[in-house]
Order: sequence, then C-alpha cells, then structure tokens
Amino acid sequence: MAKGITKRSDDYSRWYLDVIAAADLAEHSAVKGCMVIKPNGYALWEQIQGQLDRMFKETGHVNAYFPLFIPQSLLQKEAEHVEGFAPETAVVTHGGGKKLEEPLVVRPTSETIIWSTYKKWIQSYRDLPILINQWANVVRWEMRTRLFLRTTEFLWQEGHTAHATAEEAQQETLQMLDVYRTFAQEYMAAPVYIGVKTEAEKFAGAVKTYCIEAMMQDKKALQGGTSHNLGQNFAKAFDVTFQDEDGKVDYVYATSWGVSTRLIGALIMMHSDDKGLVIPPRLAPLKVVIIPIWRNDEDREKLLAKINEMTKDWKGRISFKVDDRDNYRPGWKFNQWEKQGIPIRIEFGPKDLENNQVVLVRRDTSEKSAVSPDGLLERIERLLEEIQTGMFSRAKEFRDTNTFKEDDFDSFKKRIENPGGFFWVHWCGDPVCEAKFQETSKATIRLIPMDGDKEEGKCIICGKKSEQRVLVAKSY
Amino acid sequence: MAKGITKRSDDYSRWYLDVIAAADLAEHSAVKGCMVIKPNGYALWEQIQGQLDRMFKETGHVNAYFPLFIPQSLLQKEAEHVEGFAPETAVVTHGGGKKLEEPLVVRPTSETIIWSTYKKWIQSYRDLPILINQWANVVRWEMRTRLFLRTTEFLWQEGHTAHATAEEAQQETLQMLDVYRTFAQEYMAAPVYIGVKTEAEKFAGAVKTYCIEAMMQDKKALQGGTSHNLGQNFAKAFDVTFQDEDGKVDYVYATSWGVSTRLIGALIMMHSDDKGLVIPPRLAPLKVVIIPIWRNDEDREKLLAKINEMTKDWKGRISFKVDDRDNYRPGWKFNQWEKQGIPIRIEFGPKDLENNQVVLVRRDTSEKSAVSPDGLLERIERLLEEIQTGMFSRAKEFRDTNTFKEDDFDSFKKRIENPGGFFWVHWCGDPVCEAKFQETSKATIRLIPMDGDKEEGKCIICGKKSEQRVLVAKSY
Repeated sequence: MAKGITKRSDDYSRWYLDVIAAADLAEHSAVKGCMVIKPNGYALWEQIQGQLDRMFKETGHVNAYFPLFIPQSLLQKEAEHVEGFAPETAVVTHGGGKKLEEPLVVRPTSETIIWSTYKKWIQSYRDLPILINQWANVVRWEMRTRLFLRTTEFLWQEGHTAHATAEEAQQETLQMLDVYRTFAQEYMAAPVYIGVKTEAEKFAGAVKTYCIEAMMQDKKALQGGTSHNLGQNFAKAFDVTFQDEDGKVDYVYATSWGVSTRLIGALIMMHSDDKGLVIPPRLAPLKVVIIPIWRNDEDREKLLAKINEMTKDWKGRISFKVDDRDNYRPGWKFNQWEKQGIPIRIEFGPKDLENNQVVLVRRDTSEKSAVSPDGLLERIERLLEEIQTGMFSRAKEFRDTNTFKEDDFDSFKKRIENPGGFFWVHWCGDPVCEAKFQETSKATIRLIPMDGDKEEGKCIICGKKSEQRVLVAKSY
Repeated sequence: MAKGITKRSDDYSRWYLDVIAAADLAEHSAVKGCMVIKPNGYALWEQIQGQLDRMFKETGHVNAYFPLFIPQSLLQKEAEHVEGFAPETAVVTHGGGKKLEEPLVVRPTSETIIWSTYKKWIQSYRDLPILINQWANVVRWEMRTRLFLRTTEFLWQEGHTAHATAEEAQQETLQMLDVYRTFAQEYMAAPVYIGVKTEAEKFAGAVKTYCIEAMMQDKKALQGGTSHNLGQNFAKAFDVTFQDEDGKVDYVYATSWGVSTRLIGALIMMHSDDKGLVIPPRLAPLKVVIIPIWRNDEDREKLLAKINEMTKDWKGRISFKVDDRDNYRPGWKFNQWEKQGIPIRIEFGPKDLENNQVVLVRRDTSEKSAVSPDGLLERIERLLEEIQTGMFSRAKEFRDTNTFKEDDFDSFKKRIENPGGFFWVHWCGDPVCEAKFQETSKATIRLIPMDGDKEEGKCIICGKKSEQRVLVAKSY
C-alpha cells in the first residue's frame, strides 16, 4: 500500500477518494456538488470518448449539438419524464440582467429539446432514420455527491435516434447496448451483465431501459450505461409524425442511450489497488514510463543515450515517457507512476546496460521481468495485451466468485450484508415484492436478463410463480 | 447561383443564412439566442477541434474540465472582469426545487472559477507553469444573435495558464496567438492580421489582448481568436501567490486564450459563394464525392465495379463517398454536394469508362479536368493542396486589394461606406479620438500591429503626433 492511500479492507469509500487524490484525477470545486476534472482524469475521459466516438461512427451515427437550456414548458410535455427529472433540475430565472418570461432548465438530459427539434426535421419516411449523438455536460441537482459517481454536473454522451418502425428502434436500442458491452469488456476490462430494468428502475419516459451492470471490488453493482427504447412516447408528446411509403401517417419511434464520466468511477473501483490507480492498457493515455537509474552524471549520459537508441522509432506507435528528472529519486518516481496507474514501468540502470537488458514491471501484478532491448516494442505491446486480458479475467473471476443463486429470503438478507455480492433470485414481477429488497437491505433488482435461462421457480418474497431469475444487489 | 441561395451582391446577410441552411449546418432553436448545430456543422467543429487540440498538445498543454456554474461572489472578485461580464450572464437561482442561498452564474468564461481553483494548486515555483485548456460551452446573454457569429450559448476552447514570471506569461500569450494565426492560415485558408487591441477593446480583466482579424467578403473584419496576457490581475483577485527558488513570494502571472464556433461563421463568410458552402480541404470532413452517371442498370454495375477497383486502397487514407443513390439524378447530386462545399467532385459516366478517365471538378473554381484512373489518389491529394492554397491566395488578394492607407478623416468616412475595406490610419492613442470612428461610421480600431513599420504621422482625427498606423474597419 502507498503513503496516503487508505487500504480497501479498512475503508473502501475512503480508499476510493484517496486513489482519486493520489492519481490526481479530480477534486471538489467551489460549487456545491460540481467537480473539477483534473488533467489526469480528463485524459482518461478523452480515451473513453475517442473509442466510443469511433464505435458510434462505425455504427452510422453522427454528432450534433443542441442547446444547454430547455424552456420549462418543453420539459413538461412528457408526463413521466417531467416527473422523473423536474425535482432535480437547476433553473435559470434571470438572463442579461432581467427576469425571464419563462424559466429555462439546465438540461438534465436532452430528449425534450431534441424531440422539439426533430419535429421540424421529420415529415416523411425519407427523413428517417436520424442517428445522432451529442457529447455534452448535463446537470442533475444531487444532494449527496461523490467524485465521478454522482455529481451535480457531469459530462456524457447522449444518443437520440428516430425510426420509422418499432422493430428498427428496438434493433437500435440493442445495438447500442451491445456497443456499451463491447466497450466495457474490451476497453475497460470490465465484465458486465446486460439486461432490462424493471418498471420501477427504468428511465423516466422510456418503454424499456436496457443496461450494463458491473461488480465493483466491494461487491456492489454499478450501472455503466443505459440504452432506452422510448417507443412513441416522445413523438406523441411533441407531435412528431411521418408519412410512410404508402402515405400512412404514424408517430416516430425513438431511442436514447448514454454513458458518462461515471465510467471513470467504475474504472477506478473495479481495477485499482492499495497502491493507487490501475488503468487498463487500452485506455491508458500513457502506456509506458521509462525510469533510468543513475548514480552519477556519467551513468546518466550513457543510460539516456541507450534509451534514446531503444526508443528512436517508438514515436507515433506507443505513448511513452522517459522520466529523467534530476530532482527526484528513482524510488519516488516508481511510486509516483504506480499511483497514477501507468501499465508498464521500465527500470534501466547501469547493471542492466552492462547485461544488455531492461526490467519491465507490470502495474497490475507488480511482476518484474528482465528482457532484451531487441524487439522491445513488440515485447511491450504483447505485455500490454496480457495486462489487458489479465485485468479482465481477474475482474470476471472476482465477479463470478461473488455471484450466487439464492432461494431463501432470510438467507438472502444475511448474505447480502455478509459476504455481499450479486444474487440471482426468483421474482414474480410484482413491484410490491420488488420494493422489499430495498426496504430490507437497500438492494435493488439491477436487471432482468434478456436471454437468461428460463427457469421455473417461486418468488423469493411471496412464493408466487416466477419464470426466471433476476439480478439483485446493492449498488452505486 | 443555386436555388434557394440569395446572391451575395443582393443581400450579404441573407446569403450567409441561406448558405447555412443550404449546407444544413445549423438552425435557431426553441431557446431564444441558442442554436442547434446540425451534423454537417458539428463535423466542421470536430475538424477544427481536432487540429487545434493537436496544436495545443504539441505546445505542452493538457485538457481539463471546470464547473459550468460560478458562484456569483467569485465572478465579482476581479473588478474589470465583473463589469465586463455581469450584464450578460444567465443566472441559476433555483436548484433541486429550492431557492439557492447564492445564485450561480452560468460561465460566460472561466477565469474566475479556474483561478479560485489554481489557488489550491499553486504554492511553489515547482507547481508552475500550469498549461491547461478546456473545451466547453459558455453562455453570454445576447440581444441580437446570428448563427455561429453571435449566439447566447456557444462552444469554445479556453486556455488558462499560470506562470512564475511576466516574461513567460508574455511568451505564452504570443505563442498561442501564433498557434491561432497558423491554424487560421494553414487550415482555414484565412489570411489574418495580428496585433494588440486598444484599451477600449481589450478583454475585461486583461493587461493586453492580442487578436487575429480576417476580412470577410463584405469587407468587414471578423475577430477570429484572442490571446490575453492577464498579468497578475486574477492572481491578485484570488490571492494566488507562489514562493520562488529564493523563497521570495509573488503573485502568479496568467494568460487566457480562446476560439469558438464563431470560426465556422468566419469560414463560411470568407470562402463560400453563390452556389453555397466552400470548405478548405484540410478542414473538410468529406473531401471527395464520386458520382457515377448511369443510363441503365448495366452501366450502373460496370461503373460501380470500376469505382470499387479505383478506390480499393483509399480507405483510411482519404475521406470519400460514392453517391450511388438510385432515387436522385446526377444533376441533383452535383448541386447537393456543391451546396455542402465538398472540395472535389468526381463525375464518372460510361464515356469516361470507355476513355479510361474520370472527371475531377473543383468546388472552389468549378474547373473540370479529365484524368487517368492511374495514380488517381495522388492526383487528388495534389489537387486538394492546390485548392487549399488557391483559396488562401484568393482570400489574401481580396483582402490586400481592399486594404488602404488613409490620412484624411473626411475621405475615410466616405470610403469606409463605399467601397468599404480595411484602413490603416494614424491614431494618437487617445480614447476620445478612438470613439470618433465608432460615432461617425460604426467602425472600430481592430488592432495595433505589434511589429508594424514605425512611421511618424498625424492622428487622422486630431492631428496630434502618431508613431504608427492602426487598422480600422467595420466588424462582426
């Protein structure tokens, strides 16, 4: 464990904040509930953005930008939606020194402003589909905030698509869920369960909300992304119709989907350790740091010359840094880069130079290996992939080990407190039974699997018939 | 000229809006003064962002993100700054259903929230410099708005740096001015004058404001970017001091610099024509569109097969599109892509197939050339560069032809109305004389050149001694 970082086993919440501070990712701001995302934290967001943006474009989406402000009357047009969001909005009442005729809500999400715009864009089936994504900041007034996981302002992307048929909208909803799953698993090294939210947990205004859920190291669930099939709800609220090929007029079908800076919180809580942050290589802004270890100026010159030679064709192929600062000792530097989660550290001293080797140190396992400078870049690229898959496997093993089937409610109530974990339980579908999880143990149904084994059983609460198990856990 | 686009000579303002509509770049929203940036417009912003972000990083800057909201008391800490910005702010008075204890201002610019944060980050010279940039939305309440040029909400980047010495801050200010000039000239194909703003025109809170100014096709000036040396003003307002190597304590020196979605307005007004948008190739999201011209299905198959063959190794090297839509005629397609400003159109019909040629059409000059499919990509890349430099040369020639020296105020007053243009005039430095330009002809001093020829002369207004000419023009 590192100086200044609480051990996970001592205080998980404190550990989380300590890792953020040690890796210099973010801090609270002068504005209640809002955070400052510091350069190290923002660099992670840029990596996440870069990959997701590429995946959105590969699936045919384009970016656009809609206003920050939503006239209050627009927000109120979809009944469920306003009920869900109005209580947590920030409201602009004055502009340019004057009281506004109509207050403006700072967007908590953009369905309403976007669908009031789509109304102008859509008349015919020829105008469909619309496949738009937006990278933006949104504001939801939060009482209890936690860096990255829950902040009043956060950064996110929100996709908003319009379709001619229910089938196409459903296909899009599932496609984007799959994009999120792929991103989580392949880039964040985060194994996720996918499924449908219950009526109680779905997005305000959606017909169905799909989600990805991951297990953190304290065995709680974190919802990483959601994809909503909005049906015709917003089209009806904003009177957006289109004429199909046969001249028939119908309301347009919609989806929306989003992930936010919350993913950075998930990244930290899933992979980091008592020494600080651990970043999966595919999302690491800096992948390799080289630390020459010298006793005197002569060593220094020789080591740096050899490092220059070894890395001469690395530029543009891998992001690396040579830490040749004079005013810090090697041990301090090791610790510094370890806290920041850089996947590979290369130690290189006079003995290594003599033996024609360098020492590679993995951040995730601390494993060291002495290797030849010949073919070093390829060796490093392989090692980065090993780290990536290793991180995923360990996270998956942890999750699977802590995921249980449970059929007895008393036993469930005990086990969810200790040892904790994910529980697959039978549920009859009744919201009254659903509420019992929350009441007794602050757990919730995280998802109903879409392609889970149909298994006849009895609701763990009321004993009525159930057709499949659902995932229950405490969550962030 | 194209259907639906007013001629520049008939109504320049109308033409500008028509081009935006024809190229589908943006539109007004349901929120007064705010625009919707449509996918075609946002793609231009992504190109601008991509290049600038690269240039910022190459000069050592990193990105971060600070809160959207600024407590009113923070905004008020720098006297000049609050005077300049307070009248045009949007104010949040309610959050989460309650009246806030202290109103929050939606950021019009972020100096105050950032310097209240830097106070926590800076103690020693070792903490300096801080070289941070932020991509964000900002809000300035505007009465008279115009798409891209002046909107209540706009997107921008704002750099905020902190330095140990006045010299370093000045160097940074000039470096970023140079980044903006380079970007304008090399990417936007926009020749710009650079210089210093007068006291009356400088940023509220700056010691000195530097700017780039370009001439639009109606001969008005448009300020494309500003770089401010903030001296110790904000450090003093927020009490940000540091200890230097000798233990001496001093206030920190600051700069800030920004460009916004306004650049898209400049791009349109500088290069477009009566047929629609013209995009400089280096900023074109789509560089080439290929339009096969068939009479029957057999032609269609043959042409598309040949196009596939010609473009088989283009992917990843150039962004291009084959417009093989069945339901539109070639003429309609030509017009469509012309309005959208795609730099090169390739026409390819059965005769071309027979003659083993394709026809390249330049968007900027409408010039056509029949060329061989062999080495086509290289030919296109050369042509794109020719278009880029041609656009710059024409814009520069236009500007130079319409830039004059003028020594008589009566003559100035006539000429600035007709034919209009940029006027280099002598000015004594007195704000009273400066105000005369505005009063008589709504023109302003756009800049004082930094490295202009020192030339003794007499102030065009009062006749007192002047040491150099300044640039006067009407502006956006």
